Amino acid sequence: MQLLKDRIRKDGIVREGGVLKVDSFLNHQMDIELFEEIGKEFRRRFEGEEINKILTIEASGIGIACIVAQYFHVPVVFVKKTKTKNIAGDVYTSRVESYTHGRVYDIIVSKDFLGPEDKVLLIDDFLANGCALLGLIDIVKKSGATLEGAGIVIEKGFQTGGKQIRDMGIRLESLAIVESMDEESGEIVFRDDKV
Amino acid sequence: MQLLKDRIRKDGIVREGGVLKVDSFLNHQMDIELFEEIGKEFRRRFEGEEINKILTIEASGIGIACIVAQYFHVPVVFVKKTKTKNIAGDVYTSRVESYTHGRVYDIIVSKDFLGPEDKVLLIDDFLANGCALLGLIDIVKKSGATLEGAGIVIEKGFQTGGKQIRDMGIRLESLAIVESMDEESGEIVFRDDKV
Repeated sequence: MQLLKDRIRKDGIVREGGVLKVDSFLNHQMDIELFEEIGKEFRRRFEGEEINKILTIEASGIGIACIVAQYFHVPVVFVKKTKTKNIAGDVYTSRVESYTHGRVYDIIVSKDFLGPEDKVLLIDDFLANGCALLGLIDIVKKSGATLEGAGIVIEKGFQTGGKQIRDMGIRLESLAIVESMDEESGEIVFRDDKV
Repeated sequence: MQLLKDRIRKDGIVREGGVLKVDSFLNHQMDIELFEEIGKEFRRRFEGEEINKILTIEASGIGIACIVAQYFHVPVVFVKKTKTKNIAGDVYTSRVESYTHGRVYDIIVSKDFLGPEDKVLLIDDFLANGCALLGLIDIVKKSGATLEGAGIVIEKGFQTGGKQIRDMGIRLESLAIVESMDEESGEIVFRDDKV
């Protein structure tokens, strides 16, 4: 998605350790007009798929998922992160290892809002090592819902998550795949860039 | 807002201890078409106000804020909750006591995304004792931004937050104000109900 790649090049900041800061428009301050274009693009890519629910994970996935959902005319359910060991009520749960924060947490979703009748599109802002997305996939599996695919705004193509999830046979659409980043020059190369 | 009050009566569940569960449409599963109507109503109530930014707090405020922002054509910034004592970078911070979770946490927002040039509308899903909203107000004050008002989806009128914030001279618009709830019968009375 050219508009998104241009925006990442313009406003993204490359930091050491493979960090790409896009918090001026994606995951702290949120450019809603950009989110609308992202919504249209996911709608185009998943055209004809029977999707009746969008599933995302708090916190930075929620805003994107809600705007995207307008183009699919479906509700959004967001999976909650918790460190509570005693999980109350009837929930599906999975365990996620956070690479960024160096800790393990549980994710939960109420059984009331996900079940065998659901055809689910996963939406999230970032895909790197894939742990959060694998947690969402595990939750969809446990619920008996059908996984129609996953839509990611920015994939770090130099980490393993994308390959691992595509190798599982899951349809994964990433709107911008970063192939490499140079922290000295700030240069960002995307997977499908013409050289 | 009649549509919202009807929905709360239909799908809200009254639990003991003054708990109103609306997670089937507001803050776990999210009904995006309802959020659109909420957005239109806030736009109507804040008609003519010069608002250039919406500020909310993770996690359940984010989805509503993003849909509402479409009717104001402004970006959203969400304040993050953190328990990290060493807060990195240039941020505004405040302290919030959570009544629901019985703990104190810090909230932070980057100085890059809030400043004296901003005219801010606060958006959140719930207002009860007002701690989260007071934290957001404190952050706006620290940033030098102008607070234009606050828009709340559901206010618990039997708790003190709403009165406290209106007494500060802040324009507070709550789309549904619950005056009382009966956990036996499940009956909900709104402030402006005709008896």
